[in-house]
Amino acid sequence: MRRPTRDGVDAAAARIRDVVTRTPILPFEISGTRLWAKAECLQQGGSFKLRGATNRLMLLSPDERERGVVAFSSGNHAQGVAIAARRMGIAATIVMPSDAPSVKRDATLAAGARIVAYDRDTESREEIGARLAAESGATLVPSFDDVDVIEGQGSVGVELRGQMLESNGALPDKVLVCCGGGGLSAGIALALPESEIVTVEPEGWDDMARSFEAGERVPVPDDAPPTRCDALQTKLVSPLTFDALRGEGARGIAVSEAEIEAAMAFAARHLRLVVEPGGAVALAALLAGKAGAVSGRTAIILSGGNVDPLVYAAILKAQATEAARYS
Amino acid sequence: MRRPTRDGVDAAAARIRDVVTRTPILPFEISGTRLWAKAECLQQGGSFKLRGATNRLMLLSPDERERGVVAFSSGNHAQGVAIAARRMGIAATIVMPSDAPSVKRDATLAAGARIVAYDRDTESREEIGARLAAESGATLVPSFDDVDVIEGQGSVGVELRGQMLESNGALPDKVLVCCGGGGLSAGIALALPESEIVTVEPEGWDDMARSFEAGERVPVPDDAPPTRCDALQTKLVSPLTFDALRGEGARGIAVSEAEIEAAMAFAARHLRLVVEPGGAVALAALLAGKAGAVSGRTAIILSGGNVDPLVYAAILKAQATEAARYS
Repeated sequence: MRRPTRDGVDAAAARIRDVVTRTPILPFEISGTRLWAKAECLQQGGSFKLRGATNRLMLLSPDERERGVVAFSSGNHAQGVAIAARRMGIAATIVMPSDAPSVKRDATLAAGARIVAYDRDTESREEIGARLAAESGATLVPSFDDVDVIEGQGSVGVELRGQMLESNGALPDKVLVCCGGGGLSAGIALALPESEIVTVEPEGWDDMARSFEAGERVPVPDDAPPTRCDALQTKLVSPLTFDALRGEGARGIAVSEAEIEAAMAFAARHLRLVVEPGGAVALAALLAGKAGAVSGRTAIILSGGNVDPLVYAAILKAQATEAARYS
Repeated sequence: MRRPTRDGVDAAAARIRDVVTRTPILPFEISGTRLWAKAECLQQGGSFKLRGATNRLMLLSPDERERGVVAFSSGNHAQGVAIAARRMGIAATIVMPSDAPSVKRDATLAAGARIVAYDRDTESREEIGARLAAESGATLVPSFDDVDVIEGQGSVGVELRGQMLESNGALPDKVLVCCGGGGLSAGIALALPESEIVTVEPEGWDDMARSFEAGERVPVPDDAPPTRCDALQTKLVSPLTFDALRGEGARGIAVSEAEIEAAMAFAARHLRLVVEPGGAVALAALLAGKAGAVSGRTAIILSGGNVDPLVYAAILKAQATEAARYS
């Protein structure tokens, strides 16, 4: 089985460089320590997903491009695939849960993709995606269980590497990154073998953390609590991502919904960035003091900013009201 | 009288380059046209004001640095001066209206400055600032009526020039920029003589626009309506900024409070940026169709992101509720 590698990540970063935005790293302070945030919520489509999708689609043959692509996604991967496909003139069909945030659904439609909705509780998106691909001869673009996709996401780490050297004169000593299926975190781990990689997941959905502990992939239990992190609701990580992260010595932690909402408010106020719940977990871990020792070389990934406007306003209002009460 | 010049702007940009953040330009779409936003709300301190303050303070003599600096400001200039002063070990005193947003006051205090509050309706900040400066021998750092400050703010235009060439292969044909006292817009006009410069102000506070029309500086009338743009409530522009903008053929337009709030919601949803009311006026002009012809070479400046969290949440909620009603 082909595995993602550091060379593959470097090659992917070079391949997609002119198409994706080199998102900035921004300094910020917590208790007097300066830290760095990679603002990947500023990526086109609002998340890192454009990277893996672009890398995957650039590697399709002319014949494969002709037959189109299919993807299933709660939203961010959908937008990434839709935008990448439109740019290359490839037809894209997206299988999306019927309860996906409308901000993600609308943006996917705006990028010109066809959407096929399914019921998250009763239908299998894998089966629907596979059937659509079989019917049309289209290529299925997985959201994380794919070498080219993982290597494309790893371009975040390649950029972070260069940016930390430029701005800070040193490689990051620790990188905190959100984890759903593990594509982003695995790619970053491969790009930054010198750095400690910490995956962050919502409580109850921390299957990567529990898989690290168990030494094998452990699924999310059926009674996992609700979470606002629609982007991180993956039921089982991939052997590709799990092995890559374990090979680089990554460890995993979990954060609460309250910690995530506090992090979203912090990002708005102190970084002037709109970060979606799943994109804020790494910052949440830092603010909650769960990240262990941090230094001026510690970096977090703010991986996406696609949040329903009403939900976002409600979270900011609740957080601001609470802050005003104690000030 | 010394005047700001393009050479001065270029020199300022080089002088402060290693201290300020080179804020990114981000592509976005309106009705299928790709445009560019300079995300200056991501600057340290949350607005462009760090640039002019840093340039001004770097040009002080050792003796002047020893005696400290004084500034009066509704908030963003205060933060800019406070951060620049702290970095250089200079004592800073800020004269701030008692009704300044607490987000700006708190950040100024956090940067180590001393704050002297005054009543916007009954006291003159100019007099208080002059008195404090006279008493202590400190240097007054004006927020816009100063050659070094204007030239420092112009570094936004120098960066925009380089970034548009890199990303788009062409200089901007049009730049929309907010205007309070005109320091930022004048500096950008000097940096980009080939571009059409459009200043944007809140309705009723559009003294720069009316000054262009009159051919001389016209003050804001005493009965100007309330505006959320605390950063743009300047009663009279400076001869330095007015002459520089007029010399470059700038024109001015005004936007309504409703247009500004819609722009803040657009920035959150489509650019994932928190932009304060005064920082959103250029985007508001664009979205309201008031900017005239636009092209893939048109750029706007999102100049700041320091907005009270409760006010911001309320604006986003109202905008999202309205959008949901019509969707």
